Amino acid sequence: MQKGFAMVEYDPDKPFIRHFPIRFTHTDPAGFVFFPRSFEMFPAVAEDWFSGPLGVRFADMVMLSRVGQPTAYIECQFIKPCILGERLGLTIYLERFGTSSLDVRFIGSIDGELRLAARSVQVLLSMKTGRPVPFDDKLRERLQAYQDKFPVPDEPTPKRRK
Amino acid sequence: MQKGFAMVEYDPDKPFIRHFPIRFTHTDPAGFVFFPRSFEMFPAVAEDWFSGPLGVRFADMVMLSRVGQPTAYIECQFIKPCILGERLGLTIYLERFGTSSLDVRFIGSIDGELRLAARSVQVLLSMKTGRPVPFDDKLRERLQAYQDKFPVPDEPTPKRRK
Amino acid sequence: MQKGFAMVEYDPDKPFIRHFPIRFTHTDPAGFVFFPRSFEMFPAVAEDWFSGPLGVRFADMVMLSRVGQPTAYIECQFIKPCILGERLGLTIYLERFGTSSLDVRFIGSIDGELRLAARSVQVLLSMKTGRPVPFDDKLRERLQAYQDKFPVPDEPTPKRRK
Amino acid sequence: MQKGFAMVEYDPDKPFIRHFPIRFTHTDPAGFVFFPRSFEMFPAVAEDWFSGPLGVRFADMVMLSRVGQPTAYIECQFIKPCILGERLGLTIYLERFGTSSLDVRFIGSIDGELRLAARSVQVLLSMKTGRPVPFDDKLRERLQAYQDKFPVPDEPTPKRRK
Repeated sequence: MQKGFAMVEYDPDKPFIRHFPIRFTHTDPAGFVFFPRSFEMFPAVAEDWFSGPLGVRFADMVMLSRVGQPTAYIECQFIKPCILGERLGLTIYLERFGTSSLDVRFIGSIDGELRLAARSVQVLLSMKTGRPVPFDDKLRERLQAYQDKFPVPDEPTPKRRK
Repeated sequence: MQKGFAMVEYDPDKPFIRHFPIRFTHTDPAGFVFFPRSFEMFPAVAEDWFSGPLGVRFADMVMLSRVGQPTAYIECQFIKPCILGERLGLTIYLERFGTSSLDVRFIGSIDGELRLAARSVQVLLSMKTGRPVPFDDKLRERLQAYQDKFPVPDEPTPKRRK
Repeated sequence: MQKGFAMVEYDPDKPFIRHFPIRFTHTDPAGFVFFPRSFEMFPAVAEDWFSGPLGVRFADMVMLSRVGQPTAYIECQFIKPCILGERLGLTIYLERFGTSSLDVRFIGSIDGELRLAARSVQVLLSMKTGRPVPFDDKLRERLQAYQDKFPVPDEPTPKRRK
Repeated sequence: MQKGFAMVEYDPDKPFIRHFPIRFTHTDPAGFVFFPRSFEMFPAVAEDWFSGPLGVRFADMVMLSRVGQPTAYIECQFIKPCILGERLGLTIYLERFGTSSLDVRFIGSIDGELRLAARSVQVLLSMKTGRPVPFDDKLRERLQAYQDKFPVPDEPTPKRRK
């Protein structure tokens, strides 16, 4: 581990989760999380998931390999608001993956109570050429292993209001 | 118009559009808009749409009436990245509305080239009680008039990658 | 002007000013601007000042010349809060400039009422080498002209509380 | 401790410090932290410092007591950029305090290497009346104890470039 770099700690026997204290900076005039702030949390989970169980340090991927991981699609259902002072847990599941793309699910809950559910499609792209970058064999193995070990739950999925 | 308050100018004969210069603050290590920044632009369009054609000054609604407009669901497809220095136009369409909820579509383009498409469901909620607040008659009329005058285009809609 | 790029309009006979509607995204549980959001406004003013009266399109400087303009120091006094719905005007003055650095002053007011005052030091840096990049002759001329035409007012300056 | 609320862990024998992994969301086209993102970190440290050693849970102060802690003045010197993947430690010192105001110092470093130094003045304000709220006796004691136990270092202080 290079000095000064963030380490990623996690429980390898559980779906990967990160916790976010809800701070003043996240909240709106109602004291609730303003929803765009949630969209900054999803990439944070994905970064640590890469640097942790997937074994690809995210910062190196971007800064050294010049490979980014832009979001092509995202949807999120906000089920119950998160409030200043709470601590949101965001779990990531891998729905499927292709040559260079990932379909992931995020489930956000506080003390077991569901707050939000999201799905996103992310693609590995070269920052030099703008072209997709295929996962290498080691990363494919790790993706497969994560998917096998932690199957995506049927529920919750983000749902549009009827 | 109270002094010091932002005025909203718009062309009443066209679907409501706001333009956003893509600034350093929006961009990531690739010089592209980091996608959560887009989600700050959608509410900005909705605020001005309220204050403009819908005739309900958004700031008064929040600060005086203590009625918020949280997002219950949002999805966005990012079709082509927006780059530092460009100027994104975001148009809002009203897909349908209920007693206190809105289904809106956002279409983002630059010089006629499509960049992103989003849909969101927003609900008027009392910040005191947490309960939905029905639109009053005048607002319903304006919503209906906007919907009638500017029908939602069939395309683009946000699409998940196949 | 390349298609799709933001144009900068301004009055060449007045100190350069940009206006910012105070939006939901800026505000905190009190309905006031959360102060870090102000620090996103200062660079916006500086970008347009570059692209406008200084004649150096900021996006080209960053994306083509790979020259950034990081802030080495900034101070800000918040004199009176800005509230959701207001429209903040931020004026930029040039206190002095060196070989590759700028000392600028920002004055923020709403309808002539002072809200904040800031000073910052910015340095042109190569994003490839990390070294300062001297202003070219044309830019030096424009900086000098701006400084001469719009002298920095004695007041307000940011002041620490006694 | 109420369920679902963030806990604050800290070492009572050391100046209070929080660590921030530098994420994609913080970085600009150079891969460095865009400076306004730092200003979101300072309040995060102050919140946890309140909830931790000062014994006043910040979220309760805001949401229950309706007392905010706006920043009246802040200055920051950026000494060396923080880069994607690094882990910034921010330490808070108490320079002095008045009836309802705090002068604090922030020192940011990575593996002992100094990156930034900041000072800020914060005031406890009632969100109902807009008036300053005096610290109660217990909080004054804790502030005094923190100041006594962890004297502010002479250096670094934020310095303007000569």
